[in-house]
Amino acid sequence: VTAKSIEDLPTPAVVVDLDVLERNIRSMAERALESGVRLRPHAKTHKVLEVGRKQLAAGAPGLTLAKTGEAEIFAAAGFTDLFLAYPIVGEEKARRLLALSDRCDIAVGVDSIDGALSLDRAFRAASRRLGVLLEIDCGLQRTGVLPSEALSVAARIGELPGLRLCGVFTHAGQAYLAENAQAAAAVARTEGDAAVQVAERLREAGHAIGEVSVGSTPTAREGMRVAGVTECRPGTYVYNDASQVSIGSCSPEDCALTIIATVVSVPARDRAVLDAGSKTLSSDPLWPKPGGHGFLVGRVSRIARLNEEHGVIAVAPGESFRVGERVAVLPNHACIVSNLHDQIHAARQGRIEEVWTVAARGAVT
Amino acid sequence: VTAKSIEDLPTPAVVVDLDVLERNIRSMAERALESGVRLRPHAKTHKVLEVGRKQLAAGAPGLTLAKTGEAEIFAAAGFTDLFLAYPIVGEEKARRLLALSDRCDIAVGVDSIDGALSLDRAFRAASRRLGVLLEIDCGLQRTGVLPSEALSVAARIGELPGLRLCGVFTHAGQAYLAENAQAAAAVARTEGDAAVQVAERLREAGHAIGEVSVGSTPTAREGMRVAGVTECRPGTYVYNDASQVSIGSCSPEDCALTIIATVVSVPARDRAVLDAGSKTLSSDPLWPKPGGHGFLVGRVSRIARLNEEHGVIAVAPGESFRVGERVAVLPNHACIVSNLHDQIHAARQGRIEEVWTVAARGAVT
Repeated sequence: VTAKSIEDLPTPAVVVDLDVLERNIRSMAERALESGVRLRPHAKTHKVLEVGRKQLAAGAPGLTLAKTGEAEIFAAAGFTDLFLAYPIVGEEKARRLLALSDRCDIAVGVDSIDGALSLDRAFRAASRRLGVLLEIDCGLQRTGVLPSEALSVAARIGELPGLRLCGVFTHAGQAYLAENAQAAAAVARTEGDAAVQVAERLREAGHAIGEVSVGSTPTAREGMRVAGVTECRPGTYVYNDASQVSIGSCSPEDCALTIIATVVSVPARDRAVLDAGSKTLSSDPLWPKPGGHGFLVGRVSRIARLNEEHGVIAVAPGESFRVGERVAVLPNHACIVSNLHDQIHAARQGRIEEVWTVAARGAVT
Repeated sequence: VTAKSIEDLPTPAVVVDLDVLERNIRSMAERALESGVRLRPHAKTHKVLEVGRKQLAAGAPGLTLAKTGEAEIFAAAGFTDLFLAYPIVGEEKARRLLALSDRCDIAVGVDSIDGALSLDRAFRAASRRLGVLLEIDCGLQRTGVLPSEALSVAARIGELPGLRLCGVFTHAGQAYLAENAQAAAAVARTEGDAAVQVAERLREAGHAIGEVSVGSTPTAREGMRVAGVTECRPGTYVYNDASQVSIGSCSPEDCALTIIATVVSVPARDRAVLDAGSKTLSSDPLWPKPGGHGFLVGRVSRIARLNEEHGVIAVAPGESFRVGERVAVLPNHACIVSNLHDQIHAARQGRIEEVWTVAARGAVT
């Protein structure tokens, strides 16, 4: 791409505003420092090495990822401290983790004996120990053991010579249903308290629980303040998105990532169509309540429906669009947009400074 | 990837059954031959050069695509007859189309004077003519001019020296709301009749309308039979998916593409979690009515919700899942799954014969 300005980019294109990005990184890092917790940003949001490096430069000791394939890409690029906040399972993954542990500090999530056993075999055979954090379900009802089951599962994991149970972690994704920032903060306190209490009980039973890791973007700033929390893992804060605005965890001015699209059809007064559909914006809904497929910056009209290459705008009364016009879209969910695109255009005041490869895009295994 | 068998693939992985794929390609090609229409498959479904070559080998004269970037990739690989069934707009795209027209026959959709003018400038300046097909809205209310407006728009396009108005095209995507195959067939007849009538009126006005192009997978077999239709553009038929099964346009045995996933967590009797979420399956809904995030092959249980790396199964009474178990998922929407993955594993009776690159993945501009 030879475009020097956002105005010259072929559309659709993903643009990140560097001033906003750097402010977001700095602001969360400062909050972590004030709160006395380590910030371990979830790099799933960007999957970009350059952004990860900015997060480390701002004070993060390492990054969070979900999948082994993502860790392989970041480790190959020189990142040396990674946590996979995900229940990694199976001997194929265990062998890859073993290879990764040669080049970086890597720890992973675990939430079952069967999963733990499948990791233990590979590390035990190599006379090594893999650091694992026990996932605690603090109300999301996704993965993780209930607080009431943590002690019995930890006891079994503690017996495995290939593993080292070094912490607990939670993810309060239910905060995405919060109606406002106050409600999200309440979720954060409940999450933090639950994680700290479980950690205390595990310590009383003799486990060396060093890490009490919590976090998501809506809960991060409050969760960091809970006494006993040692680490926080927000991801989306780096870019923010329409859902974060709707939940109340940021303002529109805090959103760094937009999609530049072109109006390709205006077939009726109340309808205009963008060259950005679900292949560009994804079909992910707006949180906490459905409300179209992204915000049109500076417009009241909403993107009412999507097909793969079509974003159909329901034109609001008093607004109009013309064929060829360019618009900026604030997507519902920034993380999934990153996963759809090979390149991100990093711009400052409209000028493109860098083009980043989304290095860990599609690394799902 | 060195796996020889589906059983050995790291998960999640996308697998295409070659026997089913080849039967789907053959069956649609035979129907087109019987009906006396050209089959121009929409390659957006697969974005794979090898699959496109199979479609040509079965009799298709060329392929349909949506975006200029997709055409560039297929043209570079030797495909010489392409139609972009999309309103291409703007001088940047026009310049790229001009370059493409050096190496292949390319035609594009148009549905506005402004769009047509932006293409005309580049081709007129080069003393060339770009073939365009006027898009007719036969009820989808997405892009396209209404039948009542076709004559006046065509009159303006016909005056542009850089364009050659050579056909009309429609897409009856409203068939995805059809409750069964009969309802979809009715949509197909309405679509075909509308397109043929518009073509007749344009011919009476002196336009050399050679192509009357219709189609989608649910409407293809019936639409081909409409007298006056010359070309049909189904896409999804090549793989099929859970939505096609639900609409009634195929049976589960006709589905060639599945995602192999692993159960990574069974935190409760009624809940199991797969290592395939919206990054693997997409958040696209099931058509014609929402109903989970894909079918679990051989199971009654459904994937009730998705996050990026989590597919949360609501375990049906009487069924159970164990950590480490592998499952096959028939996705809601095959086309968007193709866009999420770099590689497709082509297998026959469980053995992997080829690994295909999804060559046009992410080519959204």
